[in-house]
Amino acid sequence: MKPYAFGADIGGTTVKLGLFSTEGIMLDKWEIPTRTENHGDLILPDVAESIRAKMAEKAILSDQVEGIGMGVPGPVGSDFTVYKCINLGWGVFNLKEKMNELLPEIPNVAAGNDANVATLGELWMGGGKGYHSAVMFTLGTGVGGGVVVDGKIVAGANGGAGEVGHLTVEPNETVRCNCGKYGCLEQYASANGIVRMGKVMLEQCDTPSKLRELEKFTAKDICDLAREGEPMAASIVERCGEYLGRAMSYVSCTTDPDVYIVGGGMSRAGTIITNTALKYYRKYAFHVSTGTSIVIAELGNDAGMYGCVKMILG
Amino acid sequence: MKPYAFGADIGGTTVKLGLFSTEGIMLDKWEIPTRTENHGDLILPDVAESIRAKMAEKAILSDQVEGIGMGVPGPVGSDFTVYKCINLGWGVFNLKEKMNELLPEIPNVAAGNDANVATLGELWMGGGKGYHSAVMFTLGTGVGGGVVVDGKIVAGANGGAGEVGHLTVEPNETVRCNCGKYGCLEQYASANGIVRMGKVMLEQCDTPSKLRELEKFTAKDICDLAREGEPMAASIVERCGEYLGRAMSYVSCTTDPDVYIVGGGMSRAGTIITNTALKYYRKYAFHVSTGTSIVIAELGNDAGMYGCVKMILG
Repeated sequence: MKPYAFGADIGGTTVKLGLFSTEGIMLDKWEIPTRTENHGDLILPDVAESIRAKMAEKAILSDQVEGIGMGVPGPVGSDFTVYKCINLGWGVFNLKEKMNELLPEIPNVAAGNDANVATLGELWMGGGKGYHSAVMFTLGTGVGGGVVVDGKIVAGANGGAGEVGHLTVEPNETVRCNCGKYGCLEQYASANGIVRMGKVMLEQCDTPSKLRELEKFTAKDICDLAREGEPMAASIVERCGEYLGRAMSYVSCTTDPDVYIVGGGMSRAGTIITNTALKYYRKYAFHVSTGTSIVIAELGNDAGMYGCVKMILG
Repeated sequence: MKPYAFGADIGGTTVKLGLFSTEGIMLDKWEIPTRTENHGDLILPDVAESIRAKMAEKAILSDQVEGIGMGVPGPVGSDFTVYKCINLGWGVFNLKEKMNELLPEIPNVAAGNDANVATLGELWMGGGKGYHSAVMFTLGTGVGGGVVVDGKIVAGANGGAGEVGHLTVEPNETVRCNCGKYGCLEQYASANGIVRMGKVMLEQCDTPSKLRELEKFTAKDICDLAREGEPMAASIVERCGEYLGRAMSYVSCTTDPDVYIVGGGMSRAGTIITNTALKYYRKYAFHVSTGTSIVIAELGNDAGMYGCVKMILG
């Protein structure tokens, strides 16, 4: 094994780049803007140039670099074909072949979907360290996720594996999810979702609540008040946790991972949501899987870069 | 690759044995009784002896045999450790090591859980032929299943992968499943489950139905009447199909397979259940996965033997 590897987590605004030792230590990290003009044709040349510049700066030779792992915000095939990234302007092409043209001195290139790659990173060096199979629930503006079985990303036949935000947890819902369906987990357990659900619950009752006094409340307000024991906020968190825990039970009946990792902005609320989720997970999970842990993600925005490097190391 | 392989699918009453060419053609099949006395200590020696006898009969030499694959009715680890098979009387031991002692001339032995192995068999040579990743729903007395991703069985951290019969499809159910939970798919989509649900639906209304005229009705009666257009029977099948299709949508948000295989006694009802399931699957599935097919299993009780052999061939 050569001593160094690079991770490049490509987002719609910036590319997060990391230089790692192949033992998994992040030695340096930096960002470059993602230039999405011209169908994103400049993005990979920019990444290649930035990696070359870092190697020059650190006096690293190409034969000291094990490879480059890349995360992209769209579906990626097992041969590293990218199937459209709307946010980047990209159509369909093979990312490894393109990088090999741009940076032939580092032939070992791997790529994966950003959510899957972040799951792999958290499993390797973050909240899931020491486990083998993980499913991540990223509770942010929406709800994303990733599935790793025995250290390998499961991408799915249509790139739909790990779309845990779109598990139908409330078949009778009358409000549409952004995806077009009804009753998706994202509608209750994302930062926007818990606020929306909270408003509906407040409208449907006249229980007094500090939330009513706020002109506009956030997911953080709900979680903070729930932690203080405010009954209405607590019942909103309870319902969010029930949906999340039940969604996890669905995943366990499919791949039975040994850990769930909860990330995204909502995970900053700490254990109030994950503890509630765990209570309901145990209620709904098949008996062999009730011992599965729920942990909080630890690597934040760096998770993707860690996962990129782990793809290279195998 | 050597020309022959054996499959041994160990059930609680009989062991189904098959001699295959390594191209996947079944050349011979036979059964021996499963002797469960003495903690099942006789089962593997019986299998070894039966394989030796078949080799003598067919004049097959041990260096012409690629290996032996085995299916067992319990959880199996990736190193082929068996974690208790209550039906066989077995405790915890390594099945490959034991077979290597009994039949050292054929060192290549693999083992898997029977439901997972049957899924692999159906994917290789049955209803799922030509696909890469499959999830099977076996609608029998209960509902079992298996998950195969990119040709590999997913066993799960606790042997709970593929327990699709225990997906909670009706969280408000007040009747317990055999597993102890409430609202499992098995309570509505197994042969027993659809009859139970049918009785409840008949009690809750006074819609006339030929089912009311039968002293006792079966899953087959329901499906036959539904196919004839009997409205009450049709609405029972509709509800069964809704639960099944929704359960499949949960699986797609996790591993996104390219095909669902429906097996077990209920699959003999033909497409009436799978077509209803497909309609609801498309309603509940995330948009990227709505094109996934649902096919009917083709190998019947031989699926396990095919899957055993496929484990050996890799």
